[in-house]
Amino acid sequence: MSETRRGGGRVGRRARRVADETETGPVAPAGLSGGAYRPLSDSDVQRIVDAAKTVLERTGVEIHASPAREVFAKAGARIDGDANRVYIPHTLVDTALATMANSVLLAGREERFDLDLGGARVYMGTGGQAVKVLDLAGRVRESTLADNYDIGRLVDTLEHIHFYMRPVVSRDLPTDEIDVNQFYACLAATGKHVMANAYLPGKVKDIRALAEMIAGGPEALAARPIVSFTACWTVSPLRWATETVDILDAILAENLPVVISSAPQSGATSPASLAGTLVQIWAEQLSGLVYTNLVRPGAPVIAGCVPAQVDLRSGSFTGGSAEFALLNAACAQIAQHLKVPLYNSSGISDSKLPDAQAGAEKAITGLAAALAGANYIHHSAGFLESLLTVAYEQYVIDNDINGEVMRTLKGIEVTEESLALDVIDQVCRGEGHFLGHPQTLALMNTEYLYPGVMNRDSRADWEEKGSRDIRETARAEAARVLAEHFPTVIDPAVDADIRRRFPIRLPAEAMRPAA
Amino acid sequence: MSETRRGGGRVGRRARRVADETETGPVAPAGLSGGAYRPLSDSDVQRIVDAAKTVLERTGVEIHASPAREVFAKAGARIDGDANRVYIPHTLVDTALATMANSVLLAGREERFDLDLGGARVYMGTGGQAVKVLDLAGRVRESTLADNYDIGRLVDTLEHIHFYMRPVVSRDLPTDEIDVNQFYACLAATGKHVMANAYLPGKVKDIRALAEMIAGGPEALAARPIVSFTACWTVSPLRWATETVDILDAILAENLPVVISSAPQSGATSPASLAGTLVQIWAEQLSGLVYTNLVRPGAPVIAGCVPAQVDLRSGSFTGGSAEFALLNAACAQIAQHLKVPLYNSSGISDSKLPDAQAGAEKAITGLAAALAGANYIHHSAGFLESLLTVAYEQYVIDNDINGEVMRTLKGIEVTEESLALDVIDQVCRGEGHFLGHPQTLALMNTEYLYPGVMNRDSRADWEEKGSRDIRETARAEAARVLAEHFPTVIDPAVDADIRRRFPIRLPAEAMRPAA
Repeated sequence: MSETRRGGGRVGRRARRVADETETGPVAPAGLSGGAYRPLSDSDVQRIVDAAKTVLERTGVEIHASPAREVFAKAGARIDGDANRVYIPHTLVDTALATMANSVLLAGREERFDLDLGGARVYMGTGGQAVKVLDLAGRVRESTLADNYDIGRLVDTLEHIHFYMRPVVSRDLPTDEIDVNQFYACLAATGKHVMANAYLPGKVKDIRALAEMIAGGPEALAARPIVSFTACWTVSPLRWATETVDILDAILAENLPVVISSAPQSGATSPASLAGTLVQIWAEQLSGLVYTNLVRPGAPVIAGCVPAQVDLRSGSFTGGSAEFALLNAACAQIAQHLKVPLYNSSGISDSKLPDAQAGAEKAITGLAAALAGANYIHHSAGFLESLLTVAYEQYVIDNDINGEVMRTLKGIEVTEESLALDVIDQVCRGEGHFLGHPQTLALMNTEYLYPGVMNRDSRADWEEKGSRDIRETARAEAARVLAEHFPTVIDPAVDADIRRRFPIRLPAEAMRPAA
Repeated sequence: MSETRRGGGRVGRRARRVADETETGPVAPAGLSGGAYRPLSDSDVQRIVDAAKTVLERTGVEIHASPAREVFAKAGARIDGDANRVYIPHTLVDTALATMANSVLLAGREERFDLDLGGARVYMGTGGQAVKVLDLAGRVRESTLADNYDIGRLVDTLEHIHFYMRPVVSRDLPTDEIDVNQFYACLAATGKHVMANAYLPGKVKDIRALAEMIAGGPEALAARPIVSFTACWTVSPLRWATETVDILDAILAENLPVVISSAPQSGATSPASLAGTLVQIWAEQLSGLVYTNLVRPGAPVIAGCVPAQVDLRSGSFTGGSAEFALLNAACAQIAQHLKVPLYNSSGISDSKLPDAQAGAEKAITGLAAALAGANYIHHSAGFLESLLTVAYEQYVIDNDINGEVMRTLKGIEVTEESLALDVIDQVCRGEGHFLGHPQTLALMNTEYLYPGVMNRDSRADWEEKGSRDIRETARAEAARVLAEHFPTVIDPAVDADIRRRFPIRLPAEAMRPAA
């Protein structure tokens, strides 16, 4: 595609020649730090955290009789067995905050794909789990296991999608076959870090075994966890889902990284006031941090704030709004204050197709979350229809949007050299011009990010090339990648072992180009 | 349109009834304050300002022999007549910064449309000046005087476009007829504040006379300036365009608000380093602030930072990038530091049509500028093709994007009530639920912004209504407004006077519905 983007002109050609000869790193790498955008004042952050602690003490959380409730009882929380409520004193919260992991490594198969979650470091990637796919022919159909593999291959080529969270439900598999198969499909498709849920607690050991085989053994996996989990262990408001707690327990037992995610919808399952939703989601999160750190102090746990809202006119979930952007940006700020690694969201467009609405909703929510320093921004690629559908071409478009977001995040470097007093003086008082100046040539591949499918041609050039909107361009690019890109990210011998040990449903012929 | 957006459900109906009965102001009003996003550190802001002053002392600005150069000479600047250079000591800059207006009122015809530029208060509106129009039939044609009227009527209906800067060149008029006619076409179309350039210094008096007739006399206009000007008096880097300085002088003589705008393109007419471009643009701006405050101390002058970039691969202007967003956000921060009202930009998409690229580029540049607290964000509606084309439907789409930006800017209110501890307790331990809670009903029209054309329907509902993307929906809305909305914003008797006094080219029959 790069050929089609290259404009004419002698200076352009010279600049390109210089660019091609210059070794530079990525212009907008993963892991840049946010924090330049602070939607809340410091005192408001503190008020929200204090209020969340008050909620845990006064309102408590609902947990039915279970081993988890016993953990709280043993630690000194007050239990009301009749009402199934657990009241968590702030001393337990403070202990958890002092005990918990302040950073979590999510490893790629190569170190260049590693995610070092914590602080205000920002990574953007896919999310899940859609039930429908808008395919490249424009048809909407049920999602399948093969989509998890194919989308992964596509994501493997997209620089600004930093991790691969399993995007769709494998609706063609029975529940007891999904767990191993969805991890396998993702791990076979890309060298980026893979995250998914587990449906059954008993399958966590299998997933671990699979990951060990690919990583090169238990020690290799322990040192560099190439897989991680989400466990949506609460049902907002403030109710624990004990069947998911069993899965969480299984993951903690394996000491693998896990997101504890809660997803209140402002106005429906949390207060309509955005501040109230923040209080509730952080009460939910703190209850989970207390629990996981009682079970396994310092476990690699990531706070999972997935706040959203309903449109109060219809009661329907909506995720493309300014209010959504604010909630997620505020969660990033609160997480940094608490020093807990954070998983949250952007990119949940309410549009049904990749149009200007989708572009704008993704950009606003993505920029707000990133500038605020959210660590693991999932849902940031591929989604449409308020999380129900993913579209192949949308991943290609969102890669460009995320790139613009990451370049904005990088900010402006101010040094003696970049202030450019001498350059300005030379050009203004001398014979020179900026376009051919050595500083310009030196900066062209470090100061500027060039988009992949966003079009900068003149109208005449654009018409000559077919007057395609970005959706058509992205569709062509996705089709090209899907036809060609079958990375060998699992050693063939290991793959054969895996297929002997587990009932792998992705056929080997789906993993190579059509004959 | 609002009918089509209203979802079903009993709770939805009840909520709507409450909403309809509740008197509330706008959810995301004009003039909210930014500043929560600070792309530069305080010390970097200071370094850039200091560097700009150094440039003025050491490199100076190029001004050919002219009355303006005499103004600098008289004030004590060193003049190099042979090289046509004026070296401006920092003492003159400091005096100007202490003398200049720190806020400027740009009045609407009604006070609700007033813009109080200064601080970090944010207003978003149209910009100019395109030479082509993408019309509602999808054809690209030359722009005309009638477009300035018709786009104005459309903007008059769009809540999140806060001012009306003349959007297109009236290519059907000779230069000496444009000035009065473009102001008239805009002022006849909307009650929002109108800004445009003047092509000829001698026409400034006529424009003032026109504005006085509409405002109700010289005193009324002086108290509430319903028109303002832009004067692009520099050609970057650091060269004064003396023919435009004549126009600037004429505006200063009338004491009308004026933007002194400079528009360097990073990599072509300013350094490729973003920091260097900031240094240069602020050197240009400070030279203009020195001059205008020498001519008329405290004049209603607005700094006009229009930084952009070239794509260094082609040398072509580009305006939809992250680098563009950063430059404009940084200018807002620097303007606040200097306490000078600021005019800058967002929304310059490089796409040729209203697609996902346009949506994303507008959202990123708009959100960055607004969160940084830019005062007068022009170009934020309607533009495509790197400033060459406007599209009618794009104004409708951008109104929604700007709304989302303004709602994000509003932030999260943290009060005892919004923290909602009692609401959470009632719902979690009682019988209640959030959707029907009084707090929810009370907040539904103050906490949440509902988009105009962004679609939140389910896929089934959306398909039933015709599967339209946002461009089609916006096109229908624009067509409806253009057929119906002919506001009477100039008293008919005054209009008749105006037509007697000036050669008005907009025919009266263009100002009413087709028979």
